[in-house]
Amino acid sequence: RFAFSPVPEGPHQRYNPLTGGWVLCSPQRATRPWQGQEDPPDTEPKLTYDPTCYLCPDNPRKSPAGISVQNPAYTSTFVFDNDFPAVLPQRPTESSETQTEASSTIIKATPVHGTCKVICYSPRHDVSMAEMPVSEILRIVETWCDIMMELSRDTRLRYVQIFENKGPMMGCSNPHPHGQVWALDKVPQEPAQELARLRGYSVQQGGETTLASRPPCLLCDYIHAELSATHSQRVRVVSENTSFACVVPYWALWPFETLVVTKSHVTRLQDLTPSQRYDLADILHSLTCRYDNLFRCEFPYSMGIHQAPCQSGPDNDYAHLHLHFYPPLLRNASIRKFLVGFEMLGQPQRDITAEEAASRLRACSEIHYKRASA
Amino acid sequence: RFAFSPVPEGPHQRYNPLTGGWVLCSPQRATRPWQGQEDPPDTEPKLTYDPTCYLCPDNPRKSPAGISVQNPAYTSTFVFDNDFPAVLPQRPTESSETQTEASSTIIKATPVHGTCKVICYSPRHDVSMAEMPVSEILRIVETWCDIMMELSRDTRLRYVQIFENKGPMMGCSNPHPHGQVWALDKVPQEPAQELARLRGYSVQQGGETTLASRPPCLLCDYIHAELSATHSQRVRVVSENTSFACVVPYWALWPFETLVVTKSHVTRLQDLTPSQRYDLADILHSLTCRYDNLFRCEFPYSMGIHQAPCQSGPDNDYAHLHLHFYPPLLRNASIRKFLVGFEMLGQPQRDITAEEAASRLRACSEIHYKRASA
Ligand SMILES: O=P(O)(O)O[C@H]1O[C@H](CO)[C@@H](O)[C@H](O)[C@H]1O
Ligand SMILES: O=P(O)(O)O[C@H]1O[C@H](CO)[C@@H](O)[C@H](O)[C@H]1O
Repeated sequence: RFAFSPVPEGPHQRYNPLTGGWVLCSPQRATRPWQGQEDPPDTEPKLTYDPTCYLCPDNPRKSPAGISVQNPAYTSTFVFDNDFPAVLPQRPTESSETQTEASSTIIKATPVHGTCKVICYSPRHDVSMAEMPVSEILRIVETWCDIMMELSRDTRLRYVQIFENKGPMMGCSNPHPHGQVWALDKVPQEPAQELARLRGYSVQQGGETTLASRPPCLLCDYIHAELSATHSQRVRVVSENTSFACVVPYWALWPFETLVVTKSHVTRLQDLTPSQRYDLADILHSLTCRYDNLFRCEFPYSMGIHQAPCQSGPDNDYAHLHLHFYPPLLRNASIRKFLVGFEMLGQPQRDITAEEAASRLRACSEIHYKRASA
Repeated sequence: RFAFSPVPEGPHQRYNPLTGGWVLCSPQRATRPWQGQEDPPDTEPKLTYDPTCYLCPDNPRKSPAGISVQNPAYTSTFVFDNDFPAVLPQRPTESSETQTEASSTIIKATPVHGTCKVICYSPRHDVSMAEMPVSEILRIVETWCDIMMELSRDTRLRYVQIFENKGPMMGCSNPHPHGQVWALDKVPQEPAQELARLRGYSVQQGGETTLASRPPCLLCDYIHAELSATHSQRVRVVSENTSFACVVPYWALWPFETLVVTKSHVTRLQDLTPSQRYDLADILHSLTCRYDNLFRCEFPYSMGIHQAPCQSGPDNDYAHLHLHFYPPLLRNASIRKFLVGFEMLGQPQRDITAEEAASRLRACSEIHYKRASA
């Protein structure tokens, strides 16, 4: 459906078709002097079990009221309701009419309800996805699918946002390996925006649809183009397996940002077949290993899954399951990219090209450095 | 033109009329346990002059080619071209037609040209705006106006983005007090989006315009409503003087985010009268003092100025000069708000209300803690 033209030399901006925004790319800037903040990684060996950790098995959790709930002696993944949720379920006494809504052209507010869960990835305190075998990552994938099934039955919920903040640099408040789920009675802004753009593309390209074929899909077309380029041109591909591909997207913002996407059109996690679930675990394993190997550290990132809203709706078919990884490191294990002044007030900006980042990730081993040197 | 309805209790989302986005607000969440990253402020006393600083007067600067430029023995503000610019001026040999442009529905890139400058606020290495007298801040304001005048004469430039990253937490690469200017041949995304929304509001409300009156303006209406509420309701106002007001906007994202805005409709810095320039320096002085006093530290932030594009255009009159302050600290001088997983992948989220933040800033003295205790 389209070909890649050569990337402009020198400073340029690239379009993000999922958001409609633009990223300024200044590849010549990576050599500027740095007297700013460095966050050396914590190299203290971690305990397998930490008696003070409120996520380890058998330990007491923290809760706002001081009521002490105790974790079970879990041996695989473990899911519980967040003790400090950002959103709360709607109380039966609340009807949407009695809720305060401030509304004018300028001032608008609406209540938000929902539920927040925590997913412990492993009973072990000292591992991360990068150090887990594919079989254990598969249990996380299965847990995500189960949560999707369960929460989709609650008709008050509209969207289930699964995500992970990894590492202190990404605001993770506890080092025990875990992810989160925030499910809301509204589709949050980012997935809503993507869904609108996926729909827009599909409708715009719709002339080419026949009754027998799927409607055109932006992510199907994009990933097909990245993968079908001749070998020397697969400049943004990091890895692939039968069902999934991982690329540094053309429009990446974070230095080593990646997009993990199904090769065929799948709209939601729970629709993945068993072999696709395995392939997802497999590509997560190889990606997180490469990440850790890049700077030989526990590579921080925020990761999130985008898919169809959890109640059936006319736009759901346009959704295309994918995961975004947003990692902050730029130069080494201690020096990150700060998206600050110009990026916040002007326009997002990056210092190395997507092609350079992909080439460096491709060069990393899929065997974790801690195991390779052992 | 509108009244504030009561703010919803419990988790809710608020609309940002300048971006069209929504911010999830979870006031109940501020008490969750924190075992995450802490960045204790640097309490080492700073030198008045640092021989190793490439921004101090008389010192050699760093440059990519290793050519050593020496700073003059400047005594006030000092402006120079950034040695590591994110954008470069268009070379005379480049015509826009010969520039590579990748373009399809999904893949788009365009070259970006421009110029980057650094503004040293003071010859002293150890002060920040918060510790400078109004008379010295006025010199920074005058420098901004001079730069606007100068760069607006370059017809290739479309927008002058003035900003400051303060503190290592905000990616500031050198502690010497300084701000930056990135001027581009395109209006960057954030101001372009604001301008489109200011225009949209004005056109939508246009029925009320008469030939004699100014067109309606979103920021004029908003700030008028915040200021004209009865005293007990001025819940988001931090401070004001004759020409400027400072509020924690209804839609604030960062915990202690503020908006500094002209009370009358001024579109660009260089149109400020001498007394308005003084008032801008004055309100910057009181705001930055309050910020430092809030947690008794050199309060980090990114700050940026939004105004009309620098070449005359049909939409310029809709612009309304304002400054955004985005400070990351949440609980104390060491614990920040991380806008990570859910915020990046789902929707921006904050933990304390705008009203609570404004009330705490109002309670802070306008006399800097270092001078008060001296
Ligand atoms: O230009 P500086 O101070 O070296 O760098 C800082 O500000 C820039 C503009 O916001 C950012 O792109 C950088 O990530 C940040 O570290
Ligand atoms: O929920 P946690 O891990 O305590 O907190 C972390 O993730 C949340 C969701 O992205 C953010 O709102 C917090 O700022 C961050 O510190």
